[in-house]
Formats: sequence, C-alpha cells, structure tokens
Amino acid sequence: MKFTAELLFLFCIGGLIMIVILKNNPEKRQLENLIQWLKSMNLDVHISVGAAHMILGLIGDTSSVDIDLIRALDIVEDVKRIQEPYKNANRKFHPDDTVIELENHVKIGDGSMQIFAGPCSVESRDQICFIAKSVKESGATILRGGAFKPRTSPYAFQGLGGQGIDLLLEAKKETGLPIVTEIMNITQLPLFEEIDIIQIGARNMQNFELLKEMGRSGKPVLLKRGLANTLEEFLMSAEYIMASGNEKVILCERGIRTFETATRNTLDLSAVPLLKQMSHLPVIVDPSHATGLSKLVKPMAMAAVACGVDGLMIEVHNDPPHALSDGKQSLTPEAFRDVSACVRQLAPLAFHW
Amino acid sequence: MKFTAELLFLFCIGGLIMIVILKNNPEKRQLENLIQWLKSMNLDVHISVGAAHMILGLIGDTSSVDIDLIRALDIVEDVKRIQEPYKNANRKFHPDDTVIELENHVKIGDGSMQIFAGPCSVESRDQICFIAKSVKESGATILRGGAFKPRTSPYAFQGLGGQGIDLLLEAKKETGLPIVTEIMNITQLPLFEEIDIIQIGARNMQNFELLKEMGRSGKPVLLKRGLANTLEEFLMSAEYIMASGNEKVILCERGIRTFETATRNTLDLSAVPLLKQMSHLPVIVDPSHATGLSKLVKPMAMAAVACGVDGLMIEVHNDPPHALSDGKQSLTPEAFRDVSACVRQLAPLAFHW
Amino acid sequence: MKFTAELLFLFCIGGLIMIVILKNNPEKRQLENLIQWLKSMNLDVHISVGAAHMILGLIGDTSSVDIDLIRALDIVEDVKRIQEPYKNANRKFHPDDTVIELENHVKIGDGSMQIFAGPCSVESRDQICFIAKSVKESGATILRGGAFKPRTSPYAFQGLGGQGIDLLLEAKKETGLPIVTEIMNITQLPLFEEIDIIQIGARNMQNFELLKEMGRSGKPVLLKRGLANTLEEFLMSAEYIMASGNEKVILCERGIRTFETATRNTLDLSAVPLLKQMSHLPVIVDPSHATGLSKLVKPMAMAAVACGVDGLMIEVHNDPPHALSDGKQSLTPEAFRDVSACVRQLAPLAFHW
Amino acid sequence: MKFTAELLFLFCIGGLIMIVILKNNPEKRQLENLIQWLKSMNLDVHISVGAAHMILGLIGDTSSVDIDLIRALDIVEDVKRIQEPYKNANRKFHPDDTVIELENHVKIGDGSMQIFAGPCSVESRDQICFIAKSVKESGATILRGGAFKPRTSPYAFQGLGGQGIDLLLEAKKETGLPIVTEIMNITQLPLFEEIDIIQIGARNMQNFELLKEMGRSGKPVLLKRGLANTLEEFLMSAEYIMASGNEKVILCERGIRTFETATRNTLDLSAVPLLKQMSHLPVIVDPSHATGLSKLVKPMAMAAVACGVDGLMIEVHNDPPHALSDGKQSLTPEAFRDVSACVRQLAPLAFHW
Repeated sequence: MKFTAELLFLFCIGGLIMIVILKNNPEKRQLENLIQWLKSMNLDVHISVGAAHMILGLIGDTSSVDIDLIRALDIVEDVKRIQEPYKNANRKFHPDDTVIELENHVKIGDGSMQIFAGPCSVESRDQICFIAKSVKESGATILRGGAFKPRTSPYAFQGLGGQGIDLLLEAKKETGLPIVTEIMNITQLPLFEEIDIIQIGARNMQNFELLKEMGRSGKPVLLKRGLANTLEEFLMSAEYIMASGNEKVILCERGIRTFETATRNTLDLSAVPLLKQMSHLPVIVDPSHATGLSKLVKPMAMAAVACGVDGLMIEVHNDPPHALSDGKQSLTPEAFRDVSACVRQLAPLAFHW
Repeated sequence: MKFTAELLFLFCIGGLIMIVILKNNPEKRQLENLIQWLKSMNLDVHISVGAAHMILGLIGDTSSVDIDLIRALDIVEDVKRIQEPYKNANRKFHPDDTVIELENHVKIGDGSMQIFAGPCSVESRDQICFIAKSVKESGATILRGGAFKPRTSPYAFQGLGGQGIDLLLEAKKETGLPIVTEIMNITQLPLFEEIDIIQIGARNMQNFELLKEMGRSGKPVLLKRGLANTLEEFLMSAEYIMASGNEKVILCERGIRTFETATRNTLDLSAVPLLKQMSHLPVIVDPSHATGLSKLVKPMAMAAVACGVDGLMIEVHNDPPHALSDGKQSLTPEAFRDVSACVRQLAPLAFHW
Repeated sequence: MKFTAELLFLFCIGGLIMIVILKNNPEKRQLENLIQWLKSMNLDVHISVGAAHMILGLIGDTSSVDIDLIRALDIVEDVKRIQEPYKNANRKFHPDDTVIELENHVKIGDGSMQIFAGPCSVESRDQICFIAKSVKESGATILRGGAFKPRTSPYAFQGLGGQGIDLLLEAKKETGLPIVTEIMNITQLPLFEEIDIIQIGARNMQNFELLKEMGRSGKPVLLKRGLANTLEEFLMSAEYIMASGNEKVILCERGIRTFETATRNTLDLSAVPLLKQMSHLPVIVDPSHATGLSKLVKPMAMAAVACGVDGLMIEVHNDPPHALSDGKQSLTPEAFRDVSACVRQLAPLAFHW
Repeated sequence: MKFTAELLFLFCIGGLIMIVILKNNPEKRQLENLIQWLKSMNLDVHISVGAAHMILGLIGDTSSVDIDLIRALDIVEDVKRIQEPYKNANRKFHPDDTVIELENHVKIGDGSMQIFAGPCSVESRDQICFIAKSVKESGATILRGGAFKPRTSPYAFQGLGGQGIDLLLEAKKETGLPIVTEIMNITQLPLFEEIDIIQIGARNMQNFELLKEMGRSGKPVLLKRGLANTLEEFLMSAEYIMASGNEKVILCERGIRTFETATRNTLDLSAVPLLKQMSHLPVIVDPSHATGLSKLVKPMAMAAVACGVDGLMIEVHNDPPHALSDGKQSLTPEAFRDVSACVRQLAPLAFHW
C-alpha cells in the first residue's frame, strides 16, 4: 500500500509535478536507470505499481526536465506535465504585470496604450526625421524603423545597417521618441547600445543563441512570435531571455501562417488575452505585418485594442510626396493620424483581465 | 499586328476577363478544340501569338468558366482570372449592404448590432425557455439552440431533433425572439418551416447539395465558414445559395484550423473587414466555438465588434442551479449580461467601411 | 485509504479508462450531480481526494462518454482519456486486417495491391468505356469515375448524375471491373444499388447524416480524409459508419490543407503506416487529388506503395485524341500504364507492419 | 500602336520578365517616379496604356527586383512574376544535377543513395565511436551528431558544444565517415573547420546572416526546410548561400507544421520530386525528426527513397545497454541495420526525373 499512498500524494500537491506512465512490464535495468537519472535531477520519484501500468510521479522543479528525452524512452508510454515548462514568464509565479519603463516616462504594460510607429526601413535622414515628427504629433510614443532587414530574397534591399541606426538616433534626438529596431545577429549588438528596445524578428524567435545574448544584454527586448510557433513556444523563447537574466521582454503577436491567402498571415488575436493570462509580460500587436494590407491596419488595430493589448506596432511610410508612399502594408501619415485617434478613443472601453 | 491590337484590348476592358497563357508551340488540333470549346461558352476569344508564348484573352462572363478544367489542359501553361469567381455575393456588382429583416423588426446588416445567444443544445422546455428569457433581458435579439447536433463521435449526444425544434418554437412564442438552428440534411427541411434562420454548420459549408436546397428554400441562411476554407471558398458557398435564388445569406466566421492548440480553433478576425469589402452580405462572429474557452468569449466578442461585425453568436448555458452549467465554452447568464453590455457600449465606436 | 486503493486500481486496469481531474474545492452539489450523471452512463466512478486536487477515475466503456461535455464543466480542470474514442475501427479490439471482397474476386486489404483508376468525371459512353478497357489492360482492378461532382463553384460542371452512373455500369458490364463513385446526398442512394463501392468525398467526411446512411446501406464505403481532419477524426467518421452496422470501410488519404501552395494539398503519407497500426481497415492513397499535378502522380504513387498502402486511386483522363487530354492532375492512358507497371514492380518490396 | 508592339513583345521573350498591372488613372508623378526607379535597376520598361488598365512589362534580370516593394505602391494593382525569384538554385539555368563530393569519394547527388546516420546528440567518446562503427557496418556513409543543440527550453540539454565537435572528429578518424553537424551561430564557425558538412537547422532556415556566412565559408551546407516555409522560400534560402559564392548546398525535407498532432510534423514527400524539378541541388529526407516516431522511420524512409531522394538522415541512438536507448524517434543499431538494408534493396527501383 506504500506506493498507493505515494500515488495519491502525487495528485495532492498542486503545481510542481509531472506524471510518467510506463509501458507494461518495463525492463528492470532500464527502469532503475531511469529512476536514478530522474533523482539525479533533484526530483522526488514516487512509484505506483499495478497489473497493467506502472506510474512515476515526479515532485520537484520539473521545469528543468527535458520532457522529450523522457518521452523518448522505450519503457515510457506517455508523460503528462501538469506544470507549465516556463517559470520566469509564468504569471502563476509572478502575478503582477511587468511594467517596462523607457526614457521620457514611456511605460509599457502599466495599462496605458503605447503606439510604436515608423517606416519599414530607414531610408534617409529626411525620411526618418519627417516620419518621426509626424507620428509623434499623431500620438505615437515610440519610433520604429528597420536598419537591418531580414529579406526572403538575397537580392532585395537589406537595409542601411549601422548607418540606419545612426539615423534613428538622430530622429530620437529631434523628437525624444524612444527607438525600437531589429537585430539580426549577435555581432551587431555593439551598434545597439543607445537603442531603447531591441527587436527580435519572427524568423529569429527560436534563434536561441541570439535570445541568450539578449538575456545578457539587459536591454528591453521586443520578441515577435514566429510564424509557426505556439504560444507555449513563444513563452519558452521569452524564458530563454529571462533565464539569462533579463526580465524586460515585450511579446508581439504579428500573425501566424495558415492556409488562408487573402491576408499575408492570419492575425491570432485570441493570443492577446491568452498571453496576458499565461504571463505577466506586456503584449502588443503588429497589424501591419500580420495582414500585409494597409486597409486592414485600422480595423485590426481597433480589434487588438478592444481585447486588451498594451501597445500597437504600426508601419507608417515616407513623406507623401515620395513616389513610393502608401504601400499595401504601410499607412500614410494622414491615415495613421486617423488610426491613432480612433484607437485612443477606444482604449478606455477595452477589455482587461 | 492584328493579334497585338487584340492583346492590348484584353487589358483595356476591366472586369470580365480571364487570361490563358499557353505553352510553347501548342498542338494545333488541341488549340482549335480549346478555342472552339471556349467560344461554345459564349466567350470572345482574343489570340496573341509570340515567339515564346501564345496568349488567349477571354471576354465575357467568365464566372461560369471552370478554371480548373482549363488549367488541366496540357497545352495550357497558366490561367489568370482577373474577375472574382463569385457574382451574386460580390460587392462590385452589388454595392449596397444586404439587409435581412426578420420578425419583430430585427434587421441584420443595417449597421445595428444583433446578438444571437442561447445554449449549444436544446435540452428541455424549461432549459430553453429559461435561457431565452434571460438572454432577451440581457440584450440578445435572436435565440440560438441546437436541435440536430453534428458530433465527431457517433456515441456523443446527437440532439433532440424534431422535438428540439418544437421547444425552440415554444421559446419563441414566449419571448418573441426569432430562432436560428442548424440543419444537417435535406430531409430535415420540412421541420424548419417556422424557423427564422437556418444554420449551415462549418462541416457542411461545402455540402453543395444542402446549399442548393437552402437556395430553393428562400429562408434566411446563417452560413458558417469551414474549418479549412478560404474566404473565396466561403463566398463561393454563399454563391451556391444565391445562385439558387436566395439572397438572404449571413456569413459567420467561427475560427479556422491551425497548428495552435491553446484554442480550439484560431479566430480569423481579419476575415470580418475583408468579407465586408468583398461582399455585401452581413458578417457575424462566433467567439464561443472559435476559441472553445468561455474566458475568451468576452475579449474576442469585443474585438469582433471593434472591427465591424453585424452580429455576434454567443453560447449561453443552462440555469445556474443545474450541475452542467458554465462550460469551458458557454457563458452563464450573468457572464453573458456583462458581455452584452460591454459590446453595446463599444458598438458606437466600431470600425465600418 | 479506501479511495487510494481505488485510485491505484484506476491505473491497474488497462484500456477502458478515463481520468477526470477536478478543480480545487469543487462545489458540492455540482460534484454530486456529476458523479450521479457519470454513473447513469454505467460507469464505475472512483474518487480520490487530496489537498490540491480531487480525481475521478472512470471504469467502463468510456467510448460512449462525451468528453467535451465533461471538459465543459466548471468544476473540471481537465479530462484525460487513456482509451481511444473509437472501438469498431480500433485494431486493439480487432487485431486482424479487415479484407473487403468485391465481385470478380477483387480483395482490398489482403496484402494485394488494388489500383482504382478512371476519369475525374464520366463524360460519355465512349469515354468511360474506352478508359475502362484501357486501364484494365494496364493493370487497374477497379474503375473510378465521377457522376455527381462536388464543385467549389455553382457554375462549374456538376457531373452527369444518374446518367453517369448508368454509363459506369455499362463500362462494368464491358470490362468486369468493379465500380467506385461518389455519393453527395442521402437522396441519391437508390441510384447506387449496383455500385460496388460508394465513395464519401473529403468535403463530406463529417457529413454525419450521410455516414449513418452509409452504415445502414451495408455497402463497401470508400471514405476520403477531410482536408483539415486529424487521423483520429478520420477514424471517428469510419466509426460512424461501423457503429451503424457496416464494417466495410476503406480509408483514403488524399492530402491535407497546409500553407504550401506548390501542390494543391499536402499528401500526408505518414498517415498510411499510422492508420494501418491504429486500425484494421484497408488504407489507400489518391496521389492525383492530393498533389493536383500529374507529374507528381508517379513518384507519390511509388512512395505510397513503399510505405504499405492496400491500393491507389489514380485519375486517368480521356482518349488521347480528345482535346482535353492529359490534365495537370490526370494521366494519359500511356502514363498510367507506366505508373501501374512501376508500382507492381515495387509492391513486393514494400513496407508492411 | 507603339505600346502595343511592346506589350506583345513582353509575352514573346520567355524567362526574364515581370508584369506590373497598374490601377486606373495612376497619379502621373508617382508613375514617372516608378518608371524612373525601375529603369535605375537596369530594367527595360515597356508601357501599354488602355481604357481600364495600364501595364508595365519589365525586361531584364528581375530576380534582383524587390517584388513586395513594387506591390506596395499605391498605384499598383498587382505584379505577376513569370520568372522564379531564384537564379543560382534554378534548374532552368543549370540543367545538370549538382554533385557534392566529400572525402572518401562520398558523392551526394550523383544518383547514389547516401545515408546520414548517428545520434541526436553527441554524449561521449564511447557513445559516438560505438554508433559510428555500428552505422558504418550497417551501410551508413556519413556520420551525423549534434554538438550544438537548438532546444525549445532553456533548461533542456544544449549539447556538448566544441567538445562534441572534437568527439565527432575522433569518430571520423576511427571510421573514415564524413561528418555533418549543426551550427547555430556565426561565432561558432571556427570550430567547424574540419567538419565535412555544416548543417543549418530548420529554425535557422531564414537566419539570413548565418546563411550569408555559410556562403562565404565555401563548405558543403545541409539546409533544413523551416517548419512553416514554402518550397520557394526554401530555395530562396539556398539562393542566399549560393549568392554568397557557395554552390554546395544540400536540401533536406524534415516535415512541416500542420494541424495534425499524431506525428510531430507532417513529412511533405511531394517536396522531393518538386525540388528535384525546380532545382539542381541534391535533396535528402529526415524521417526521424519529421515524424518524431521511431516506428515511422522505416516506412517513411522507404517512401522517400521510392520517390527519388539522394539521401536519408536517420537518427540512431546510443549503445543498447544504455538505459536511454531506442527513443520514440531514434532507432537502435539493430533497427537501423534493417532500415538500411531495405532502403538499399528499394533504391534501384526508385523514381527519378
């Protein structure tokens, strides 16, 4: 009956627990090796033997257990994790909202609505400064702009690089707007010293080496959800940054890849309330990249605000006189002013947990 | 130069046009057969011959052309349709919003916010009448309830069938709320005579025989988007109903199937403004089925309203004293009252084309 | 300690079992109602109370339990089903392969390789008879052809209907090949009396009313996997047919919908060995519809054979002299002869459980 | 008529061409800017004006044109690329198969079947050398093993790093098998000097900085397809490496992410013949990671061979006495010997373009 008591016990301590269901008649030596290995990870192992199934209950911090490795054992039927695999990003262990404060008293995650706006790519001093002033007047609180651009084609414009970052900092000097821009490789980090928020793009959400580096940098990080990543994987990537010592992570939903071709990606807005419940980190939405259609930026921005985002990231393109203005994805400064106004009007009525 | 002039002409008449790009040196007889066949469909065929490619431009009502059949020809390189394949559902040919009027002056699509509420399944007279009264008090304008239930398992409850419909009609008598309920087969149609809106479930979105029958019925139809269907396919299914003579179609976004498992399906809210722009038909959203989580019904309902829906379909479950109340997906009457109030407050600020 | 013993017992009887994990401090009356309701389904309910969690273990035939309904309860944290929800289709309860015998000693599922070949649509007596003779000479054992065609567009050719079925039967008379053709609605059933195998198309995989009717018909049924359905849902649809008394179900993988646009659908070949292991039913593959590209039919047919299918369904189009021959998806009779020969050569080396 | 002649001309020169369809009445200055900008990219611009549409035909090397940027213009209705966006990887411009020769006369892409085998992670000298000898005896021609491991959880084993690479090189010394192992960051490159093939994992398929570095390295690169990337994007990533001067790229299909949960990913085998047709690069398949289930490795390996792969990547786990042997994904050395033998037997009958 000893096992029984322990098995009962398994279900009696909430939280930190994992259940390993073994196959019938596990090979004795393999079982001993498994138990020994589990105990070597500072886990209490509780065994229940039965006619058909043997079950191991693991007590302790199972977040550090490699569940795939256990599942991979030929004596294991299945593993059920009761505890989420993320700790630092988990609201259960950190009930209060994380608030990230930037220069000029800009706070992300305190219930205010922060609007990140700017061009897809920094093209010139005039362009970035013009847009910076324009979006600030319209209510933007953070300036976004691409210096290093991840492009599907090696023949497409790859961004101005370091020079683009210098131009962003000039725009910051002129407007006082904090800056967010994307990093693509560890080696670029020194260039980001004066940048307020470092962006990790969707394609790098699981570039784990880069995530660890972001953790060491200690700077606010804007982490974009990968095109095919679950919310759990998204939080695990945030966990990489946090586990390396940096709590300042902003989560950004920017659309996932589905069979639908009418939009570039499918904006998953239910991710907003879910992430806010699963984690204490701020959550923003990028309707420009998610839909790839400027005409959808306003309705999707409004929808995102209604379900409780902490901020929006909106693409605003160059000076209207320029020929390349008003892209399928970017808004003109005029259109942005309208979106910004409607969003600010809607914010007070938004949903919040 | 004659061909050239025609080729130019191809691009000069907007709208009704399709371009067929042929492979190099098409087999002469096959080409003649193709052209003859195209002309037999009352299409003007304009030919342009060049060194590398021959192109056919089709003028006329190409909506009746089976594009797959043309693509399937071995002399055809590609076919590009400039015109959408749907006509009756196309806003281009029908700029004004379609407004569907039910009893008691309930209008769907006129800019008002209609709330469809009720239980997943009709269980008893008391249950459905209790909920009907309760949701009406809370602001619902249409009563929903399942009599015939599509269930993945043959062993799961399949609904009360005809008796369920009688109970819905009793609830209508008591409350005056119009009724919407799902049909699963043509043979059930006689039972739906007094039903205000017939629902076609997501799994039947491409049950074309059923769609044709709905067209002949002349009754308002609530068409739910299939779990893996594009917006174009969605409108083509509406076209089936309309082509059979019934213009009263309500489109309902209820989530699509993706890799994400945190929600039952992924609610595709960008479908709302897109459908409103592509078509003149009313568009509603069902946050209960899309997310499968009651805690997400409120934020997603608010998001849907913000981006311009004509209505919401919300699952409200039985009298609270009942043991099975407040499911993961259904709201209690209390929770529904709150959602309804927040939604009505938000509606005046919503986005509209 | 009584509960403990029972909880242990839960894990000791393999197979028929489900575990219900309750939330903390469940409302007493709701709990009593739940237990009473579970017992009313002839389930033994074993309770284990603990400091953090209460667990119910269900013993009995849980395949008849509506797991969603239990999950939906507000006192329930989670439900874990150890037993698969399908019984009749489950190899665990039916270890031997199901073999379906048609006329002329054609057996599906006995380890032989059956090739279903024919045109997408029956167009004329000459066409279907020509193709029937041709594919028979090339090694086809079953004739396929569409009489009722599910088409995305109401304006596309919908098939010859009843006349098409008559023409198929004439081709059968001439060649002795058994016939498979698709049914789209219950009302069409009388026309299928002499048809050897009734096909349920992908779009109707969850047309549950039609599935039940197929069960009552007692005829061999070719069930195609839905574009967005999991293997478990696929087997649940087979279960619908079998639960209505018909064991003669053939499973057909025909591609699932993904983000990839290079092929019409993504052929999921790992479904073949998985389905063979999960179920005792025959499994075939349709490379023509899955890929939508004739050039991929041969390699995918060969791949399907290598991983252990019981048959292939291949589209072969009209007499070559005809202008519409050799579509993107269909093979010419010549190309089919080549595929058939390569497939027969490969079959003896194929994988089998 | 001048424009007409040019427009005709557009369709007469196959290959290098792109068509830009403008919106009605484009703003004159924007049009001039667009044309000027296009010409600045060394493109001939041919204009055709019509009543409803104006069309620009671009002649020249449009592979260097950023199609998204053009699409983004508000005066542009649509852009149709006739030419694929990849050049170096395109079989059209490079008809002959690329053959990559390693040490010991191992050739990939010459029609032979190369088997990459080894453990998921290098764990110790004994482990890797034992497996290396074992798989070599069983017919493996290349040794795989992970030194740097991309893990979803920061708490999971991250690999032995540089030490793991040293152990792989020892195993190479002992067996003569060429080595393939994954790089996760540019800074690790110096450690890979003696490695025969550098692997880019699925999560890094669009880590463009890393791809460029691989191009400069000049070493054979094994590029794994991203979980949510199209075949065109896959070839564009190969193009990044090739555009940086390295032609030695091996493409590896390893499953894509879909809604199906029965397998870890969905192995897209139709990608094999398609990639072989689209490109001249060698194509291999990794059934271990694609399915995540060891029981599916054999059938999927056989299916991959049947449809024409140049090689297979198979996970073989540690010395059997070890407790962690025979995972859900890995094969035992015995199981691998069987797979290897069946595959070699099947290879001569495989499909090839």
